[in-house]
Amino acid sequence: MISINSRTSLFTDHYELTMLQAALHSGRAMRPSVFEAFARRLPDGRRYGVVGGTGRLLEGIMNFRFEEAELDFLATQQVVDQQTLDFLANFRFSGNIYGYAEGEVYFPNSPILIVESTFAEACILETYILSVLNHDSAIASAASRMTAAAGGRPCIEMGSRRTHEEAAVAAARAAVIAGFASTSNLEAGLRYGVPTVGTAAHSFTLLHDSEREAFQAQLASQGVGTTLLVDTYDVNEAVRTAVELAGPELGAVRLDSGDLIAQAHEVRALLDSLGNENTRIVVTSDLDEYAIAALAAAPVDSYGVGTSLVTGSGAPTAGMVYKLVSRANDEGDFVSVAKAAKNKTSVGGRKYALRRRSPEGRAVQELIGIGHRPQDDGDDRALMNDFVVNGVLVDGWTGNAGVQRATARHQASTAELPSSWRRLQKGEPVIPTEYES
Amino acid sequence: MISINSRTSLFTDHYELTMLQAALHSGRAMRPSVFEAFARRLPDGRRYGVVGGTGRLLEGIMNFRFEEAELDFLATQQVVDQQTLDFLANFRFSGNIYGYAEGEVYFPNSPILIVESTFAEACILETYILSVLNHDSAIASAASRMTAAAGGRPCIEMGSRRTHEEAAVAAARAAVIAGFASTSNLEAGLRYGVPTVGTAAHSFTLLHDSEREAFQAQLASQGVGTTLLVDTYDVNEAVRTAVELAGPELGAVRLDSGDLIAQAHEVRALLDSLGNENTRIVVTSDLDEYAIAALAAAPVDSYGVGTSLVTGSGAPTAGMVYKLVSRANDEGDFVSVAKAAKNKTSVGGRKYALRRRSPEGRAVQELIGIGHRPQDDGDDRALMNDFVVNGVLVDGWTGNAGVQRATARHQASTAELPSSWRRLQKGEPVIPTEYES
Repeated sequence: MISINSRTSLFTDHYELTMLQAALHSGRAMRPSVFEAFARRLPDGRRYGVVGGTGRLLEGIMNFRFEEAELDFLATQQVVDQQTLDFLANFRFSGNIYGYAEGEVYFPNSPILIVESTFAEACILETYILSVLNHDSAIASAASRMTAAAGGRPCIEMGSRRTHEEAAVAAARAAVIAGFASTSNLEAGLRYGVPTVGTAAHSFTLLHDSEREAFQAQLASQGVGTTLLVDTYDVNEAVRTAVELAGPELGAVRLDSGDLIAQAHEVRALLDSLGNENTRIVVTSDLDEYAIAALAAAPVDSYGVGTSLVTGSGAPTAGMVYKLVSRANDEGDFVSVAKAAKNKTSVGGRKYALRRRSPEGRAVQELIGIGHRPQDDGDDRALMNDFVVNGVLVDGWTGNAGVQRATARHQASTAELPSSWRRLQKGEPVIPTEYES
Repeated sequence: MISINSRTSLFTDHYELTMLQAALHSGRAMRPSVFEAFARRLPDGRRYGVVGGTGRLLEGIMNFRFEEAELDFLATQQVVDQQTLDFLANFRFSGNIYGYAEGEVYFPNSPILIVESTFAEACILETYILSVLNHDSAIASAASRMTAAAGGRPCIEMGSRRTHEEAAVAAARAAVIAGFASTSNLEAGLRYGVPTVGTAAHSFTLLHDSEREAFQAQLASQGVGTTLLVDTYDVNEAVRTAVELAGPELGAVRLDSGDLIAQAHEVRALLDSLGNENTRIVVTSDLDEYAIAALAAAPVDSYGVGTSLVTGSGAPTAGMVYKLVSRANDEGDFVSVAKAAKNKTSVGGRKYALRRRSPEGRAVQELIGIGHRPQDDGDDRALMNDFVVNGVLVDGWTGNAGVQRATARHQASTAELPSSWRRLQKGEPVIPTEYES
């Protein structure tokens, strides 16, 4: 794992630091506190969410330091006073972080991440924690629906150009966790060891004096196993040319426009008639999970997904919040706290979570204990993992290994859901969330 | 301007480099070529778009280099062959880049960025160019509608937690260009010199033993000019406590939940009755341009906007594409090229653009000349600017100065539009795009 962006501490809202200043001033900053990240609801009609980002978040929290450039800025701009600057200069997260494994499915009010520390330490991580979890979980959740719709056919992530360049890297990572086979994003390959793929675009064909010349050039350079893009001019003519030049070993043809269902059938028949039964068909035109599902009966071999993947297919943010749910009083006893006013109430108290499962291993309920661990009936699965203990990162969650582990977790977690998890139409969460106090 | 992320070359789709390899192999890679970034259409019902990201894009292109880590990765993973690696090791963009000024408004098919170089050089910039322009323009376009709806009332960008942490920095920058007064994002303050603001969240109130204690702590630390958050428990009680503790100089109160219109009236009346006519009201609960417009008649002093800003208010990507529109043939003559198949046709040829204006200075048409500069009638405004000339960056577009210039450009460009630009309901672009060939 190569991290090019070691500086994370100013991915932070101004108010986190002014709150810190005021709490240092009032003497409350060191109160032991519990913050919880959770989503009050899933995006409209979604049946489950997928936790994304945890691995890279934990790396970023370990790099959450205020060094000269940051401290100079905060001092010059008078964001905070000297006492606060001194605190920040020495800041190292020293508390505990627990939570759902990356790749795990989640439901409304699942306690996805719990930070136990002083108020000061836990407060200033808020913005960064939510940025990473909200973005990556939105992508992982959308990606999971797409790979579910694709069945066993591989999905290729190719949305980099439709989102911020760094978000694109995180999106590629999240997509792979949720079952995508590969990505077009090279930086994601470098940073996370995920497979990258790609061959050519329309511009390559247009650069050459003819489509034939372009195909010849690509085959000469990349070999007959390559994927030729056949919709720059006339698709059938392009397929004939491709087969003529590459022979029966041509790897694949790509369709990027038009009526993909009709065209896939036509191209499949043509390829077969020309003796290219093993040449695959890749489709890539503005696909989302619905378009993928609609192509299930078409002779398509893999799906390239761009815009809708990196924009969360209608839900570009997971809507998670990060709330103080418990903190010590002057006697050192923990007190549950929650905002009371109007339409944004939260449930106070330290949470524990269990996925209740039937004797057959089928998930039936998301059970959240408030202030205690719910009892495992023997078939259940505990959902909270130790990520950071007394400021020390627990092995296995970060880096390339973390991505692989999260990919396996996603597969195992969806496999135990009721079969309705694959339904794309709007509905209720596939299992209910219940509190036990 | 401090750039922490100097490495941009692998924010690139795999196929850009395999295309390069095949073009080097076929001998076509050095053909002089013209690529164009444009949007075929605006997001559903939008009347204009706003160009965002150009300044930071140009900085990134100047840093677009393949160094040891990148080359090692590409070699180890066998993404490209040795000839291509040698080309990349020596890569410095040496061509020309023209385009719309950052902050400029655009319409369907406006030629927002034009890259003139060899195919090799222009091709490999595709993914990065589109990532930056698509993200930042989506945010700037949404932000512009919000500041338009807000009239003269200041808007505060506070969406960092709802998007990728780096996208958040870019979003803050884009929001300020489109008229936002400030942001909560500290990194944006550090990198681009934009004003940052913030005071406290609900967790600060909940940390303390009472709301009164929390307010006292905040006032003691931040002074009476601060903004107190008054909706943790009972709003009216909180306002009374705030005024009691801070007196008539209390800066502002913030409402973050409930029926904002009714509450704003109630709180305004209460503040006035307590003698706090100068205490402002800030509202911040899931606002978008429609909610801001609905609050126009309410006694609100400023708007904090989060989720809907950073997700482009329903249009999280600007949908721009980057197409080869012209390239030299063997005789060295430029030939217009365009994909012909099906539903994604483009207009080939090198473009020039002019905003046709009435004698009163009102924009009436987006006029695009194909292969020639349209004639200025005397009242018109040329839209293409030189950004990079023979590989050398033109001064004034990047860094903090670039942000300020873009902010001014946005203001001037919207001011000359027909007044219908402020309409939020769906409709046609406020001026038509016409081609002149």
